[in-house]
Amino acid sequence: MNTIQVTVWNEYRHEKQNPLVQQIYPEGIHQAIAGYLREDEHLEVRTAVLDDHDHGLTDEVLDNTDVLFWWGHMAHGEVQDEIVEKVRQKVLNGMGLIVLHSGHGAKIFTELLGTNTQALKWRDDGEKEKLWVVEPGHLIVSGLGDYIELEKEEMYGERFEIPAPDELVFISWFEGGEVFRSGCCYRRGTGKIFYFRPGHETFPTYHQPEIIQVLRNAVYWAAPTEGADVTYGRTAPDREHQESH
Amino acid sequence: MNTIQVTVWNEYRHEKQNPLVQQIYPEGIHQAIAGYLREDEHLEVRTAVLDDHDHGLTDEVLDNTDVLFWWGHMAHGEVQDEIVEKVRQKVLNGMGLIVLHSGHGAKIFTELLGTNTQALKWRDDGEKEKLWVVEPGHLIVSGLGDYIELEKEEMYGERFEIPAPDELVFISWFEGGEVFRSGCCYRRGTGKIFYFRPGHETFPTYHQPEIIQVLRNAVYWAAPTEGADVTYGRTAPDREHQESH
Amino acid sequence: MNTIQVTVWNEYRHEKQNPLVQQIYPEGIHQAIAGYLREDEHLEVRTAVLDDHDHGLTDEVLDNTDVLFWWGHMAHGEVQDEIVEKVRQKVLNGMGLIVLHSGHGAKIFTELLGTNTQALKWRDDGEKEKLWVVEPGHLIVSGLGDYIELEKEEMYGERFEIPAPDELVFISWFEGGEVFRSGCCYRRGTGKIFYFRPGHETFPTYHQPEIIQVLRNAVYWAAPTEGADVTYGRTAPDREHQESH
Amino acid sequence: MNTIQVTVWNEYRHEKQNPLVQQIYPEGIHQAIAGYLREDEHLEVRTAVLDDHDHGLTDEVLDNTDVLFWWGHMAHGEVQDEIVEKVRQKVLNGMGLIVLHSGHGAKIFTELLGTNTQALKWRDDGEKEKLWVVEPGHLIVSGLGDYIELEKEEMYGERFEIPAPDELVFISWFEGGEVFRSGCCYRRGTGKIFYFRPGHETFPTYHQPEIIQVLRNAVYWAAPTEGADVTYGRTAPDREHQESH
Repeated sequence: MNTIQVTVWNEYRHEKQNPLVQQIYPEGIHQAIAGYLREDEHLEVRTAVLDDHDHGLTDEVLDNTDVLFWWGHMAHGEVQDEIVEKVRQKVLNGMGLIVLHSGHGAKIFTELLGTNTQALKWRDDGEKEKLWVVEPGHLIVSGLGDYIELEKEEMYGERFEIPAPDELVFISWFEGGEVFRSGCCYRRGTGKIFYFRPGHETFPTYHQPEIIQVLRNAVYWAAPTEGADVTYGRTAPDREHQESH
Repeated sequence: MNTIQVTVWNEYRHEKQNPLVQQIYPEGIHQAIAGYLREDEHLEVRTAVLDDHDHGLTDEVLDNTDVLFWWGHMAHGEVQDEIVEKVRQKVLNGMGLIVLHSGHGAKIFTELLGTNTQALKWRDDGEKEKLWVVEPGHLIVSGLGDYIELEKEEMYGERFEIPAPDELVFISWFEGGEVFRSGCCYRRGTGKIFYFRPGHETFPTYHQPEIIQVLRNAVYWAAPTEGADVTYGRTAPDREHQESH
Repeated sequence: MNTIQVTVWNEYRHEKQNPLVQQIYPEGIHQAIAGYLREDEHLEVRTAVLDDHDHGLTDEVLDNTDVLFWWGHMAHGEVQDEIVEKVRQKVLNGMGLIVLHSGHGAKIFTELLGTNTQALKWRDDGEKEKLWVVEPGHLIVSGLGDYIELEKEEMYGERFEIPAPDELVFISWFEGGEVFRSGCCYRRGTGKIFYFRPGHETFPTYHQPEIIQVLRNAVYWAAPTEGADVTYGRTAPDREHQESH
Repeated sequence: MNTIQVTVWNEYRHEKQNPLVQQIYPEGIHQAIAGYLREDEHLEVRTAVLDDHDHGLTDEVLDNTDVLFWWGHMAHGEVQDEIVEKVRQKVLNGMGLIVLHSGHGAKIFTELLGTNTQALKWRDDGEKEKLWVVEPGHLIVSGLGDYIELEKEEMYGERFEIPAPDELVFISWFEGGEVFRSGCCYRRGTGKIFYFRPGHETFPTYHQPEIIQVLRNAVYWAAPTEGADVTYGRTAPDREHQESH
């Protein structure tokens, strides 16, 4: 099996401003996720953050990325449009994209899906969440049971303004009364996109083994395939067909 | 607008055997639903039950049915296979089918969808259910708000072994911790199928106005369209195309 | 039945520059389509073109449009971004959008779908096209037979870089050897989008009755429904539920 | 990488009755396909035919099959219902199923999909087919170009009465004027199903390398995943949740 090259991108602001978040993720959410993923020897993992030059998403990095994770929240507006467009084209050309939690409002997610993906209900009281598996045969849920339970999480509730997912793999239940489409798969261009809901910065969600299991599974699901080599543009007719008559 | 011809089919056993059910639905679930639907002057509503001759689903009845409701539970096995097949062909030829609650285990639903549709989690303690709208632009949710709340219902929980719905319009939240795909739309052949979860016989669900609103909306959604007149079988090639070369 | 308010938007450049196009559509493609649609008394039809002030898509016009047709080709780049965004939000809030032929490359289509929708194969030799019905029960094909035949059309061929349609209703066959997903339905936000392939400006496609039949059907399909009144943003928990324990 | 266990099932009647077919597939279609697949060292391939005891689909064979190929045509009616049901449950529990050509009318395909899958247009004149790739990022098309061309094949034309595929990867063009959804992916239960159109017994389709490439790709796509271990039936409520209030 070939190595899959993973880049974990993080806004990396909450961790520097909020002591609580810092305590949970001392080196940032990106380093926590990267560290766990590196335990899989088939994954080669690097990280990038908003404040890096070009947000750390240079051509060199993107050309060597099979699957890109995206965590953002308070600074969606600071991501440069040209870089968003560059990432969008990479996804349409086969790079996998895994959008985490508040990344639902990121430009890259909205531009790839076309709807107001920031629109949903929310409540950050910290309440129990259960992510129920609705497609138990899907690669992304491998190794799980009926559901993943998180003791304290931010709530996201429907209506979530997304296109109907190509495959819906998780639905969340929240203690306060809401539900949410929490694991959503999309194909766009030749790339695959997975949205995974949990991961509020004030809770230790990315330290929970089942969550890491899903992220690892999602890397394998979203990794590019060889695919078909198709062409676009002006095309000659099938002359042999025409001449044969 | 033309009249839509509706047949409400019910197993009609619980109502005759359980005094509690009898109290809620003295004339049967079918008569309760039919009575409410008749308030819409565009609907012409009849009923049929398991113990009628041919289960009340004669050719004459089916030929004059645009949309068929199906409620069944304890006697799925008593429905004759030939009648199931006749109904299946009617659906594939354009008749709408609205499957209610425990009807998920009915032969007609399983045979049209092909999976073990009886497989799900359940608990009949009577607990709060909230049916959240996930597709607010859909005809079936017209007139609703964010959700429908039912004070006491039987719980159905995921994993529910159905093909992924063509359109998912409701997701239920249950007090005891589960979620469920509660409003599922399918196109099969030229017919439309809607599965709507609530409606356990020991609760007055079908007396709740929002539930009736959904059933009425579903009739309009599932009613046959004129459609295209397509053919099957051995077909001649496009001779003009061949000769023109 | 209430009147449906339709606006037919056209770039209206080819008709002014190319005598052949002028001959086929002396008052423009928009007026040809509008004229045919007005034969249906339930439709109230207006037109708008690129060179109108604000492209004719003022708030007043959009607030009174249930379904918007879009034909564009050589001047996609001249459509103002703010107006594209305004139209996009209207669609996400329920307005129907019917994108015609070369409109696949229009900003409004790309921004609503998120992929490089301009990418496809093409050849403007003028060749036979057959649009085969693949979903004969769909409202959009009502009144048709097995297929629509166009004697001369521009060819569009796969791969067409669109998200997989929510419903695929037509597939085209071309004399020169290609196929194309020619009738594509999408739900985005609470709005519906229909892409319909035929309609090259140098052929009299919009004078063919079956094509007009499809456009009229599409208006009925894309017209807004009442839908559910959902909310977004911070939400209180279900206190009654919490207190009941 | 673990070995994938493949069983190629064939009706094996045409080959014994028709000298032309015998010439093309002297040991049967199953042996031709099996032979090519065995060139991939990760696949362990066996065969089974209708006239074997229990059609060669004993529990022992099915329990050791990850992906089952199915070619049938003239003897669909001879396949025993109990074996069809056994295979259906295997698929719903994760076994991959690849249905070839005239297998669209096999009981196993109809029962898993629920529609009249035998209904389509056809013509066995032997004409050119082009299978166009519509999802170039899909695993099943890996290694292909824009299309696969077959010089002589039986024609199948739309309308094909199938549920809309979960993923549509190929659309065929035929010389005589028709189109067909030729590569159709479905998820049912935890299993995956791929329908692949070409393969009429009187043409050497299964000797063409691109066709074998697709079959091999399809094995990898349809192979079972570990998945989630979900449960069904009566379920206790989340007591901790209830007690915490």
